Amino acid sequence: MSAQQKPTLRVGMIGYAFMGAAHSHAWRNAHRFFELPFTPELTAIAGRNQSAVEHAAEQMGWASTETDWRALIARDDIDLIDICTPGNTHAEIAIAALKAGKHVLCEKPLANSVAEAEEMTAVAAEAARQGVFAMCGYSYRRTPALALMKRMIAEGKVGTIRHVRAQYLQDWLSDPHAPLTWRMDKTKSGSGALGDIGAHSIDAAQFVTGQHLSGVSAIMETFTSQRPVGGDFVGLGGTGAVDENTAMGPVTVDDAAIFTARFDGGAIGVFEATRAALGRKNAMRLEVNGSLGSLAFDFENMNFLEYYDERDEAGSRGFHRIMVTEPEHPYVGNWWPTGHGLGYEHGFTHQVVDLVTALGAKTQPTPSFEEALGVQRVLAAVEESASNNSNWTTINQEDTP
Amino acid sequence: MSAQQKPTLRVGMIGYAFMGAAHSHAWRNAHRFFELPFTPELTAIAGRNQSAVEHAAEQMGWASTETDWRALIARDDIDLIDICTPGNTHAEIAIAALKAGKHVLCEKPLANSVAEAEEMTAVAAEAARQGVFAMCGYSYRRTPALALMKRMIAEGKVGTIRHVRAQYLQDWLSDPHAPLTWRMDKTKSGSGALGDIGAHSIDAAQFVTGQHLSGVSAIMETFTSQRPVGGDFVGLGGTGAVDENTAMGPVTVDDAAIFTARFDGGAIGVFEATRAALGRKNAMRLEVNGSLGSLAFDFENMNFLEYYDERDEAGSRGFHRIMVTEPEHPYVGNWWPTGHGLGYEHGFTHQVVDLVTALGAKTQPTPSFEEALGVQRVLAAVEESASNNSNWTTINQEDTP
Amino acid sequence: MSAQQKPTLRVGMIGYAFMGAAHSHAWRNAHRFFELPFTPELTAIAGRNQSAVEHAAEQMGWASTETDWRALIARDDIDLIDICTPGNTHAEIAIAALKAGKHVLCEKPLANSVAEAEEMTAVAAEAARQGVFAMCGYSYRRTPALALMKRMIAEGKVGTIRHVRAQYLQDWLSDPHAPLTWRMDKTKSGSGALGDIGAHSIDAAQFVTGQHLSGVSAIMETFTSQRPVGGDFVGLGGTGAVDENTAMGPVTVDDAAIFTARFDGGAIGVFEATRAALGRKNAMRLEVNGSLGSLAFDFENMNFLEYYDERDEAGSRGFHRIMVTEPEHPYVGNWWPTGHGLGYEHGFTHQVVDLVTALGAKTQPTPSFEEALGVQRVLAAVEESASNNSNWTTINQEDTP
Amino acid sequence: MSAQQKPTLRVGMIGYAFMGAAHSHAWRNAHRFFELPFTPELTAIAGRNQSAVEHAAEQMGWASTETDWRALIARDDIDLIDICTPGNTHAEIAIAALKAGKHVLCEKPLANSVAEAEEMTAVAAEAARQGVFAMCGYSYRRTPALALMKRMIAEGKVGTIRHVRAQYLQDWLSDPHAPLTWRMDKTKSGSGALGDIGAHSIDAAQFVTGQHLSGVSAIMETFTSQRPVGGDFVGLGGTGAVDENTAMGPVTVDDAAIFTARFDGGAIGVFEATRAALGRKNAMRLEVNGSLGSLAFDFENMNFLEYYDERDEAGSRGFHRIMVTEPEHPYVGNWWPTGHGLGYEHGFTHQVVDLVTALGAKTQPTPSFEEALGVQRVLAAVEESASNNSNWTTINQEDTP
Repeated sequence: MSAQQKPTLRVGMIGYAFMGAAHSHAWRNAHRFFELPFTPELTAIAGRNQSAVEHAAEQMGWASTETDWRALIARDDIDLIDICTPGNTHAEIAIAALKAGKHVLCEKPLANSVAEAEEMTAVAAEAARQGVFAMCGYSYRRTPALALMKRMIAEGKVGTIRHVRAQYLQDWLSDPHAPLTWRMDKTKSGSGALGDIGAHSIDAAQFVTGQHLSGVSAIMETFTSQRPVGGDFVGLGGTGAVDENTAMGPVTVDDAAIFTARFDGGAIGVFEATRAALGRKNAMRLEVNGSLGSLAFDFENMNFLEYYDERDEAGSRGFHRIMVTEPEHPYVGNWWPTGHGLGYEHGFTHQVVDLVTALGAKTQPTPSFEEALGVQRVLAAVEESASNNSNWTTINQEDTP
Repeated sequence: MSAQQKPTLRVGMIGYAFMGAAHSHAWRNAHRFFELPFTPELTAIAGRNQSAVEHAAEQMGWASTETDWRALIARDDIDLIDICTPGNTHAEIAIAALKAGKHVLCEKPLANSVAEAEEMTAVAAEAARQGVFAMCGYSYRRTPALALMKRMIAEGKVGTIRHVRAQYLQDWLSDPHAPLTWRMDKTKSGSGALGDIGAHSIDAAQFVTGQHLSGVSAIMETFTSQRPVGGDFVGLGGTGAVDENTAMGPVTVDDAAIFTARFDGGAIGVFEATRAALGRKNAMRLEVNGSLGSLAFDFENMNFLEYYDERDEAGSRGFHRIMVTEPEHPYVGNWWPTGHGLGYEHGFTHQVVDLVTALGAKTQPTPSFEEALGVQRVLAAVEESASNNSNWTTINQEDTP
Repeated sequence: MSAQQKPTLRVGMIGYAFMGAAHSHAWRNAHRFFELPFTPELTAIAGRNQSAVEHAAEQMGWASTETDWRALIARDDIDLIDICTPGNTHAEIAIAALKAGKHVLCEKPLANSVAEAEEMTAVAAEAARQGVFAMCGYSYRRTPALALMKRMIAEGKVGTIRHVRAQYLQDWLSDPHAPLTWRMDKTKSGSGALGDIGAHSIDAAQFVTGQHLSGVSAIMETFTSQRPVGGDFVGLGGTGAVDENTAMGPVTVDDAAIFTARFDGGAIGVFEATRAALGRKNAMRLEVNGSLGSLAFDFENMNFLEYYDERDEAGSRGFHRIMVTEPEHPYVGNWWPTGHGLGYEHGFTHQVVDLVTALGAKTQPTPSFEEALGVQRVLAAVEESASNNSNWTTINQEDTP
Repeated sequence: MSAQQKPTLRVGMIGYAFMGAAHSHAWRNAHRFFELPFTPELTAIAGRNQSAVEHAAEQMGWASTETDWRALIARDDIDLIDICTPGNTHAEIAIAALKAGKHVLCEKPLANSVAEAEEMTAVAAEAARQGVFAMCGYSYRRTPALALMKRMIAEGKVGTIRHVRAQYLQDWLSDPHAPLTWRMDKTKSGSGALGDIGAHSIDAAQFVTGQHLSGVSAIMETFTSQRPVGGDFVGLGGTGAVDENTAMGPVTVDDAAIFTARFDGGAIGVFEATRAALGRKNAMRLEVNGSLGSLAFDFENMNFLEYYDERDEAGSRGFHRIMVTEPEHPYVGNWWPTGHGLGYEHGFTHQVVDLVTALGAKTQPTPSFEEALGVQRVLAAVEESASNNSNWTTINQEDTP
């Protein structure tokens, strides 16, 4: 059957900033490199500003636009809603979409509160019984090296896990002149470094180990409490000349969150998420030490995975620097020959591949909203501990609706 | 003016293997991230096997197919011919296309001999006078870190260049069971590691330094002289169970080429290209040492550039490990925020960007065929020296038609 | 004045295992590379086993032996007592030595309890008023790269410190067959990874930042609770064939300690000490992120310091990989030319240099017992938090006798 | 038998600059960490300047002095002459010492010409027949990681060797103001980067592979032809304020030498030695690629060896970063526990260990003068090729007296 003859998966996307661009790229290209049961179609994109959304549609390749997300959901020619908006809108949109019978891909973190996430999870569970599926966009799982890490741990290559060491270090808010955006507004983003990047570390740690965090002790800190309003936006942050006339606004989220943790499988963990680690650009690092070996990853070197195997011959033991570009590595065989590395956006492409493949098989794609709720519970526990003198806060992962 | 309203650049591509996939991706996506004067249109793809070319068209997004490249060139609805075939066909196709008034993008190396390259260059020069332009696909120039390296050298950051150190190390032919393909057949590929990967090093060295090689002394070596015919092809190479019944065929190209060189600006250089350096997957490395600083690159860590600045304060001097993902770095501002690295295929996308931008400005895109002829002269000198007891062989870069 | 004519500093050392060998090397060699006010003389060494101590004296170059440390302290021909015994003996020996008018160098951690450390500090303060000085052996301070880190922070190179990230990762107790030694016996060692290696991290963090920890939340864990008694001892650990007949004994200390912390200058910190991180051999790592730059160190690459300077020119910012072997770097000018790295034992040699230099100037060498008591308070707080459900535990650094 | 009762090896050393300090340290300390058949005794040191040599003796621990090396050789109480002088004096001293029945340790390169080296080798062969042994000081062989590299190659771990890649990169002569010293005077040093550091690469390459270079094609270059006379000397080089009044003198040696090579076992090689590679402080690098694996070393990270094993499981192949600090690694078990790295001077200590051990066994220590003559032949061939338009120059390693 030719690609043209394949059924299509008609996608409607809401939001078109950083995440929207990454998702669009994935929807456009996934079927060019992977065999999919459906050919994705970039049917419509929604945004509040008419001219901006039209420009985005043209730029990113969407066939039509809407200025009200409700209108997008109401359309008959849409099979899946892709939510790329700030966290405060996820619950309402996702619930409406699922109830309208649309599959949902929702950016992370799932919501801005456990209550919202619980409601979303309940609705998603009901929808799944009708064959309508929801998935949360923890895209780092689809980085080949992290997918390989999970596989190797599942194969027993590191034995019993003792240590998890997770850092997500960025520096774009180190500069106090970086302007205020929605990512620093708690009402929109839910939290700062914790939910934005720490959530990725939590999801990745649970994903690769197969264990869940059972308790935490946390510190959260805001180094810069006031930022200029409306500077030029550059990348995630921005730069703006600040003088005495610059209007300033309050930062209501954390610049950094650090916590120790216990896992339900016996491991102990250290987590750190910060946007104020100068020189660390996107250091999403994860290391696991087990009784038989260790695995270590750093997103700044995303095409590599380091592996120490205690069973290697004495005298030649040492971390293997695996270049994760071999045909036998996850996802990689569909791309370039050995040694030709991938980039940031490939994680989103693989996310589309896994999602569409699951939809074709009428199975639940992962991570489900229930899994993402588990991350949300950790985020909430971290905030609770931090606001309660860092005291130990347990997490009941079982307590799902 | 909207993207739809923009004039299109109608592309016809010949060949659809590794390079074809990379070029297709670039043609599909360049205008999604960069502002271009023309919107590329994937009009037609040519290949000899009807069903294979149709499958490729569908997979890669080409609107129509041809089974004869001459038919492709003859079509009125094609503005540019993109040549992704083995080197022995470049001259005939490129010359025909240019004479038919089509712009040409031709994969490297430009040709399999200096004579062919000279003829192509002469034809390209004539075409350019008619506003029809030709460019050779030395895509590594468009890796942001190498483009930054060139810019920093041009700005004087390393002073007078003394040393050039270029290695291109791969390992996919280390295994004697890797099957024979056209890349090991001198009649098709012209040479082995030398033309396939060494050519990139030569072009990159000349590009970043602004100097040209003036002489070389070379050794070429073939470690495996017979390979199995028709094994399973994997990536660039392949694997195949080899037993006494396996038909074997001769390898007629080099597995490795090494040479010392002098540059016309006074630098001395060491070059090495090999497909037999086990563990080195795509180590395209280039280091330049000058009187004021040094710059070093390794494609296996393609998002980084190392820079030593002798003028840094004493006590804190050391190679800066620059993560080349900042808005001020070449090409990068159009992609993701700081710290979110690019992959192999981005070089091809940038190549399309630079090519289309030059065409929009009616200026010669670089590298021109003339520049690529310069690389060809070096390849020829290396082969001549290697076949002449490694004796010194001068290169006359001026001697262009 | 010739070295022979210089006054000598007559040293008596107690203990001759790993630390004894390192200290002996330092006493023998410091004056060969540095100008010292006294020439150290290896006068006598004490140990309980006569033949063992005699063998050690011969091997390490000590002129005489004692089998009772009290006899060593009683000798008239000893100016300084160097204590290289397990922590449970430090207080008694150090106090006796100081009261006998001998200078003291005491291995770290200072003691096995805060109460002991307080008493030692009080006695040391009294002795100092008589011109008799005590110092604690936190030798990592004398690694050139860490000394450089302190200097650069003091010079303001990183601005206001926000993050401290300290890891001390080893793997020699990952193997459950590694035999039980005094280091796993709480009555002798006080604690496990926490006091043995975590203490170095705490001291180094306070030393380089000039800030003190004000509170912690901690987890301590013992992964292997029983170990074979009397296996072959290799390095810090050992190997021993273990079968059903092997006698096992209890491990009464932690294999790992992890904690979050706040510093009195406003920084937040994450600490981890473990002997179960497979593949990490002696990864004593310390990173500081400030408002103007960052500094990072890893003892496995002890001759390097990484430095990110936000004030570097945009486009060429990146961690400087400083090879700390230049004449302008601390201690280094007295050794080899640029690029010729030092090893582990040099920290001990520099410790002797700093100690003897301070004694020559009749000034308090650092770290004093009072500073070491500060580390002890942190160790105690970590243990208290860990045994109290990881709840926040404050540290009163002012509360010194 | 106790150390005191052991027979001594009475050493007389000539020269006391950089090499003299390193050798003295080794003679003082080797028996403190290794079991030796003789206890070295630092009996006498010779130098032309009376007060300088007396100062050196005191500083470095030598018991007596001589101002004429002939007087040193004439002394009855000397068993071994250690030659640490510039290369132009090696032949005369070594020959006189051997003829006087003294064992000889001679710094590298063995001599400043093949003729001298041949004569030395002939005399050494005659002396060996009398039980008097000579050894050349290619100390890098005793770096544990390089010794491990040799062992692993000998064990077949990399299979048939195809590539040798040797670089020795320094930068202390990059600055044109670095003053003129004997190392830039051909009459004293024989050559520049070639003999000083390139000789180490040649010896190491031959040592680890067990193959000999059979031919070369070379370029030698002097970037700075005049240097200030008599500036302050710092490390290997120096700094000196240079103005119009500064006396300048000619540099008569190479700043850099690069060459391609063939080995008698079939490998091909690329060599580079330079003192003008800014930022490279002591990058003595050696990589070998074979049919089964690869090994790579860089002295700037001297405690590590990288090893790629093609027989590792597919999916987890990658260079092992071996920290060469395990008891099973060469030399290392006599030092510190796992993970506690060694420094530059340990190579000299191990050299003494191997030399004294061989003398104890009455066997020829390695490298013999004959082996060092082999290196000398390569140096001569490189110079010949460089002065003969880089043409291929064969090396007859068999042609030994």
